[in-house]
Amino acid sequence: MGKLLIVGTVAFDAIETPFGKTDKILGGAATYIGLAASQFEVDSAIISIVGDDFPQDYLDLFTERNIDITALEIVKGGKTFFWKGKYHNDLNSRDTLVTELNTLADFNPVVPAAYKDADVVMLGNLHPIVQLGVINQMKKRPKLIVLDTMNFWMDNALNDLLEVIKHIDVLTINDEEARQLTGEYSLVKAAQKIFTMGPRFVVIKKGEHGALLFNEDQIFFAPALPLEEVFDPTGAGDTFAGGFSGYLAASDDSSFENMKKAIIHGSNLASFSVEKFGTERMLKLEHKEIRNRLHQFKKLTQFEIELQ
Amino acid sequence: MGKLLIVGTVAFDAIETPFGKTDKILGGAATYIGLAASQFEVDSAIISIVGDDFPQDYLDLFTERNIDITALEIVKGGKTFFWKGKYHNDLNSRDTLVTELNTLADFNPVVPAAYKDADVVMLGNLHPIVQLGVINQMKKRPKLIVLDTMNFWMDNALNDLLEVIKHIDVLTINDEEARQLTGEYSLVKAAQKIFTMGPRFVVIKKGEHGALLFNEDQIFFAPALPLEEVFDPTGAGDTFAGGFSGYLAASDDSSFENMKKAIIHGSNLASFSVEKFGTERMLKLEHKEIRNRLHQFKKLTQFEIELQ
Repeated sequence: MGKLLIVGTVAFDAIETPFGKTDKILGGAATYIGLAASQFEVDSAIISIVGDDFPQDYLDLFTERNIDITALEIVKGGKTFFWKGKYHNDLNSRDTLVTELNTLADFNPVVPAAYKDADVVMLGNLHPIVQLGVINQMKKRPKLIVLDTMNFWMDNALNDLLEVIKHIDVLTINDEEARQLTGEYSLVKAAQKIFTMGPRFVVIKKGEHGALLFNEDQIFFAPALPLEEVFDPTGAGDTFAGGFSGYLAASDDSSFENMKKAIIHGSNLASFSVEKFGTERMLKLEHKEIRNRLHQFKKLTQFEIELQ
Repeated sequence: MGKLLIVGTVAFDAIETPFGKTDKILGGAATYIGLAASQFEVDSAIISIVGDDFPQDYLDLFTERNIDITALEIVKGGKTFFWKGKYHNDLNSRDTLVTELNTLADFNPVVPAAYKDADVVMLGNLHPIVQLGVINQMKKRPKLIVLDTMNFWMDNALNDLLEVIKHIDVLTINDEEARQLTGEYSLVKAAQKIFTMGPRFVVIKKGEHGALLFNEDQIFFAPALPLEEVFDPTGAGDTFAGGFSGYLAASDDSSFENMKKAIIHGSNLASFSVEKFGTERMLKLEHKEIRNRLHQFKKLTQFEIELQ
């Protein structure tokens, strides 16, 4: 069993989609990553920060799933990071209505002693200086450091982002961000350019259009499972990252072949996440459902063809 | 060896992309379909119409590839259909600068006697009344009728389109058109609605995002091969349709399993088509290149995963 260290937000989200809206519910990148990773045989810990408005029930959801929250700092008198957003009708774009950083403004992650030798570090979307600070606290080089980021940091902290990217193994970003980061429209060329920045692997997330995994001379593609209804895309990318890093930590094998499986596991879990608001679907997910849907993924993509 | 009947435009195109521009070159849906289908062991014929400005060299390109052009009408004193377009920088959208219907305005396809028993009929994008006219001339029901269409006919001849769709087996359209035709955003739901209109199979083309094949209870997905450079997307969809229908005519098997292979063959050939202007790449394509790229498709998509 591998050790997975997760760094990212634990938050309140208020979400509006064409299908309905929520009050403040459990959200945040580290939340989705942790819940997805807990589907695998891993020891995982979350480093994050919340206020004392964060309910015990939510904390219990983590500990019940064997997720170590020793390093989830609870600030007395502080308020938890809050995001409110509204999705457009096609669910492919959204407007952010409210962002209250609250306790996150002073987040200074401290890696717990028991996780300074983690096998896999999954750095959720945060300021790149915060992400780098976590890497620098590791007492030995993790087998795999995975970093997720977004265009906001390319616009506002590019040099810091380029610095942390030097130290990682896998970069996960979406297609538009890959183009922005590299100035290359072709995703193949974009990935090649990212390799010169440090990472050995690039995962390009295309939302409903699937995900691409690149190493220097191989490409693998996993589609998103076509669904009758996408209810709420919030957290799909983080759920993907959690399935990906959780599987890799559990299997302790970062070959390209095994990373392909990790991509499929991540896509599979993300396909559940979007079926209900927030974390609702992930909290009730059963092993049998996961297995059945993996089978659907195989049917969706596998073929036999004669190569004469 | 099966018989494939192809109906569609044979045309002059003038194309401008960010990488260059052409004068009038060989184009048209039936051209791309025919060239792609000729990669398989089929007897094929094109029904179309051109003017006597259409060069003998172009006609020879068809006959050299064993494509029957008896039913390619050459109108004396007439001019060949001409399309001129300019692609935007991302190559995902384009402006039509010139459309001269010319002889195509009076196109009244006549199915040659030798093809009234064709196994597969591939109806390229044309007025749905013209497409229906071809079906009505068949002396026995083809094993498979494939129809390609576009939003223009949904906007301008919807009732005619709905009529011809009743008589076909496979509808190929792009994702936006599937949504327009059905009013369903989810492609899964859109396909289900299209089944109630007549077809047993729906192929939804997503361009650089691949293609989905649906029957009533199965889905298959094929990605587009990620390329370093897409040079000219003109004809990619028709090349896909030609590879799809050509393979199905050659293999005489319209099971879902075999249709999956047809989708891969179509995607594979389309990946070449976009590498050069117009038909240039397709005219110089070698068997070995096709086989090697099929191998790339397998590597891109195939994985082993344990289903515990």
